[in-house]
Amino acid sequence: MVPQLQLIGVTGLPEIQTGDNLAKLISQAANAQGTELQSGDILIVTQKIVSKAEGNVIDLGQIEPSTLAKEFATQYDKDPRLVEVVLRESRRVVRMDRGILVVETKHGFICANAGVDASNVPGDERVSLLPVDPDLSAQRIRSELKASLGLTLGIIISDTFGRPWRMGNTDIAIGVAGINPLLDYTGQTDINGYTLRVSVSAIADEIASAAELVAGKLTQIPVAIAKGYPYVQNEEATARSLVRDGSMDLFR
Amino acid sequence: MVPQLQLIGVTGLPEIQTGDNLAKLISQAANAQGTELQSGDILIVTQKIVSKAEGNVIDLGQIEPSTLAKEFATQYDKDPRLVEVVLRESRRVVRMDRGILVVETKHGFICANAGVDASNVPGDERVSLLPVDPDLSAQRIRSELKASLGLTLGIIISDTFGRPWRMGNTDIAIGVAGINPLLDYTGQTDINGYTLRVSVSAIADEIASAAELVAGKLTQIPVAIAKGYPYVQNEEATARSLVRDGSMDLFR
Repeated sequence: MVPQLQLIGVTGLPEIQTGDNLAKLISQAANAQGTELQSGDILIVTQKIVSKAEGNVIDLGQIEPSTLAKEFATQYDKDPRLVEVVLRESRRVVRMDRGILVVETKHGFICANAGVDASNVPGDERVSLLPVDPDLSAQRIRSELKASLGLTLGIIISDTFGRPWRMGNTDIAIGVAGINPLLDYTGQTDINGYTLRVSVSAIADEIASAAELVAGKLTQIPVAIAKGYPYVQNEEATARSLVRDGSMDLFR
Repeated sequence: MVPQLQLIGVTGLPEIQTGDNLAKLISQAANAQGTELQSGDILIVTQKIVSKAEGNVIDLGQIEPSTLAKEFATQYDKDPRLVEVVLRESRRVVRMDRGILVVETKHGFICANAGVDASNVPGDERVSLLPVDPDLSAQRIRSELKASLGLTLGIIISDTFGRPWRMGNTDIAIGVAGINPLLDYTGQTDINGYTLRVSVSAIADEIASAAELVAGKLTQIPVAIAKGYPYVQNEEATARSLVRDGSMDLFR
């Protein structure tokens, strides 16, 4: 059998407002463009619209920066209120150097600026934060689609992260529902009878990256549908399993 | 327009031998399964078969380990000859701790074990090394397909790398030909008129990750074809542009 995977961007979504029902808006938009959602499909939803729907957007005008935020901002020509928001969203600063602020977020993700972002947020001084619990955000969308359409989908909430050592960003999974984010080959044998030692694929991150290729940052396509990937369904799945434990990490 | 991307695994390739013409074998296999290669498609070829075709496989029986290799191997229950090969393929050790050997390869890639790998290599004591010049490997496949079929494709040589902070591996690009590996949005404006600051997508890495989803590690599908991605054609493209310069990297 020839393995095939299809990624389809979902166009025509309106600007998302606090309280919007994302599942409903996404299924309507998919329908309007002639894409049929089916059980087994994976829906990849970018963080920004999830944060908007959940009201996780703040106005920098209400932020009083700390001395630490002001110092860093002055040194590197940044908005001290934005630096303050980043620090408030963090539980640990990993690197604060050369104008780059890499932190561990409240969720445990390690990324630049704690995922705080001003792009694609209407209003001059408004920035989006990461969802409070991206797995729960994913579960809500999944439950809603099951209830309204009777479909069982995998859901991935994605965001755009940088990486050490490599140029350019890739999209990764910050929340999942219904889909195992890791695929473990450990102990299985290859075609020559060689037993694979530690070999785990971060398939949720790979799917998020694939989705970014049809979503894009300028075209307001914040959702993609993946069809044809035979994932392991798991009701207990969480994107926290994609986070390496600090004690096992050589680069914190 | 609805953006769509299709990934198709190429099945039925034989075990690759030194000197094999990969372009020919891949186009034959695609043809045999009814997949038509077209100009504009991207061919994602996993490192292992490139190394095999180029004869970049060595026998551990011929390796005399150094004291450093023996010390590390003894401490962490590893094969000292394998450790020796990893060190020989490296130009710098980034971390050598807890049984993990992260190095900078001769090419500048930072990865575990310098990309040296025993899986999917026939013979008990044989391991594959990374291609000597993966961009050149990609160019060869591209030129061959242009000469034999008159097709202009993008080529990505992929490999499976781990990441700091996150569990599981993803496939990334170690060589490219004809396709810009980075897509730079910097200075463009989003739908609200907000000018994106530094915003660059590592699309070659994202395409490699997408391809891994149809390739897989146990099924001997070492090649995938991507259709529908509107990439920027570039005759001068190199995967070296995906490597962050040491002076700009906070995590070396």
